[in-house]
Amino acid sequence: MSSETKTDNSHLNGEERTSAFTHKMVRLEDGLSLECGEHIPLLEIAYCTYGQLAPARDNAILICHALTGDQYVAEKNPLTGKPGWWSRMVGPGKPIDTDRFFVICSNVLGGCLGTTGPTSLRAEAGAAWDSDFPQITMNDIVAAQVKLIDHLGIGRLFAVVGGSMGGMQALTWIARYSDRVFAALPIATSPYHSAQNIAFNEVSRQAIFADPDWHKGRYRDFGAIPARGLGVARMMAHITYLSEEALNRKFGRRVRQAGVTLDTFLFGEMFEVESYLRHQGSTFVRRFDANSYLTITRAMDYFDLSADFGGDLSLPFKDCRTRICVVSFSSDWLFPTSQSRVLVRALSRAGANVSFVEIESDRGHDAFLLEEPDLDRTIHGFLDGAAEHAGLKKVQN
Amino acid sequence: MSSETKTDNSHLNGEERTSAFTHKMVRLEDGLSLECGEHIPLLEIAYCTYGQLAPARDNAILICHALTGDQYVAEKNPLTGKPGWWSRMVGPGKPIDTDRFFVICSNVLGGCLGTTGPTSLRAEAGAAWDSDFPQITMNDIVAAQVKLIDHLGIGRLFAVVGGSMGGMQALTWIARYSDRVFAALPIATSPYHSAQNIAFNEVSRQAIFADPDWHKGRYRDFGAIPARGLGVARMMAHITYLSEEALNRKFGRRVRQAGVTLDTFLFGEMFEVESYLRHQGSTFVRRFDANSYLTITRAMDYFDLSADFGGDLSLPFKDCRTRICVVSFSSDWLFPTSQSRVLVRALSRAGANVSFVEIESDRGHDAFLLEEPDLDRTIHGFLDGAAEHAGLKKVQN
Repeated sequence: MSSETKTDNSHLNGEERTSAFTHKMVRLEDGLSLECGEHIPLLEIAYCTYGQLAPARDNAILICHALTGDQYVAEKNPLTGKPGWWSRMVGPGKPIDTDRFFVICSNVLGGCLGTTGPTSLRAEAGAAWDSDFPQITMNDIVAAQVKLIDHLGIGRLFAVVGGSMGGMQALTWIARYSDRVFAALPIATSPYHSAQNIAFNEVSRQAIFADPDWHKGRYRDFGAIPARGLGVARMMAHITYLSEEALNRKFGRRVRQAGVTLDTFLFGEMFEVESYLRHQGSTFVRRFDANSYLTITRAMDYFDLSADFGGDLSLPFKDCRTRICVVSFSSDWLFPTSQSRVLVRALSRAGANVSFVEIESDRGHDAFLLEEPDLDRTIHGFLDGAAEHAGLKKVQN
Repeated sequence: MSSETKTDNSHLNGEERTSAFTHKMVRLEDGLSLECGEHIPLLEIAYCTYGQLAPARDNAILICHALTGDQYVAEKNPLTGKPGWWSRMVGPGKPIDTDRFFVICSNVLGGCLGTTGPTSLRAEAGAAWDSDFPQITMNDIVAAQVKLIDHLGIGRLFAVVGGSMGGMQALTWIARYSDRVFAALPIATSPYHSAQNIAFNEVSRQAIFADPDWHKGRYRDFGAIPARGLGVARMMAHITYLSEEALNRKFGRRVRQAGVTLDTFLFGEMFEVESYLRHQGSTFVRRFDANSYLTITRAMDYFDLSADFGGDLSLPFKDCRTRICVVSFSSDWLFPTSQSRVLVRALSRAGANVSFVEIESDRGHDAFLLEEPDLDRTIHGFLDGAAEHAGLKKVQN
């Protein structure tokens, strides 16, 4: 095992490729055995930490990131130059208070920001995995996190927190490793991917496959990236992250002047929402790998906690002792409140200690990433109460 | 002017290309002047009719089709071999009763089933318009229908009926030609395209542009069609036509065995909803032209009845004397009830004769095409009452 900062980011373009990564790395030579039966011989996990691990090693919070998130929760992202994706939530005196808690976030297995994934070098082959990377599941993603926690010498996490796909990981933790998690906050998530969720992901994948630069996943051998397909995938996904109200408020039907080119003009104008989506698509392809996108979206689609229990969603939580707070947003139509209610009912049937908060917001799924004071209060309050029950020391003022 | 059945369908593949069209054609040598300032020198309109025009010429109903619809409302579609898209609604003794009414449906301007559009031969050039086809608007689409109605010698339509984009045409009729329409039924539609509507259409277009067979719209010169891009566009659009509930009921998370190929397998399986969407995409590209798709989706995006009235949606209906029944479906998230309410309030402010029915259905936007007895009763009842007010003769039994 070693801590290092290098990672293979040759799938990235231009200036990003030269950026210095500031995350920590753990290199696990025993690898990881996957649910599909394959074994990854070398498992590397890239992660960031904030705050100090208490001597009792009882104050660690694992934050699980979403589909296109990363480990840069609360510091400048070296790829994009932007603040960490949850800087407003994590830090000294913030709802997830790094004066009190030791916060860990690792890039997910299958990702493209340092943790073993399609862009990683395959030790025995001397080349990247690319499209040969095996199909992973949410259980595999969490199993890699367990190895990290073991490596850090943490027997039990104080909490696991995650939104969207991060929430799926939080749910997997409490379903499979409940004795290792005191509290959990699954936010804007679902215990299974619905037919509509799968449908949108499938269209994303088809958009990538339709790109001539896809080359059946061997695009790096051709010095190419399927940027157009991946861009379309991201544009479509981005619509699902926002509510109709948010889009209307943000853009409405406002138009801007556009160069009169074949694919942009409508009386020489284009709608602002079109311009915005194109920007979303084009910036995304500079920071994300297409094979990672395919690998992780499939893991999401396959996610269904009740699958191994004959469809009974209470059974995976039968022995769950974790304190749980489920959070949904009223205008989230990707992971609607109705899915959270199904989850909460199942947890209740299992006798779990669960509370549920639906936050009124008109900003859709992405609300969990945005300025939502009710979310701040919910997270802070829940963690504070749980810390008291766990007997954690208060911050010295 | 002449009636004929030939049309240019060389954008279609295989067996479809040899199918005999059964629609009527009108050829208008004075063409059509468009809102963008261009003039189409030759306007051809392909249409179907059902029932008999009464001697008083007062029983005509114009049905306006949706984005990917066509004129084959109530007879076998010669391209697909399937029954007409509204066979269950239109026919003898049906809610739109062809024993009583003379029903007309024309392929929209910009379409690809016989009416002048990108695939039509450009008289002066000796070749098809393809991507040179000018950008049309909903006003242009309706102006072409007005020419057809003039040609048929009909001074005033008894009714205009349409769902989705067909509803936009119905609204355009009553905003611009109210004196020529006694009654109107805009169904599952909106007086403007919202930011979310535009966003989905824009992703569709980007998917087409990303296809290497797109060739900047000159694909027919290359003997190609952008089938993959158009397929992705259709797959995505199809998700928006269905509700989450409908997708769950129809497919849930059921899987089927799939050949283990790079782009389909997940432990050798694929979800049924994936298979269904792929089928939707691949059959669509055999019957629809990509340039038509681009042209018509842009016309939809540009649709906003209040645009010329400083955003006041009541003004276009100021002198409206048409009897109107607005219909929405509770689970339609593409054209949600909230948009119909905005329309109904504007019509009320304008002093129009408007009623409004929200039909409870969990089948989403496509409900207007499906077996929904409440819709049948609403349409039949509204038309029956309007016919009485219009002094139309009852059917002889």
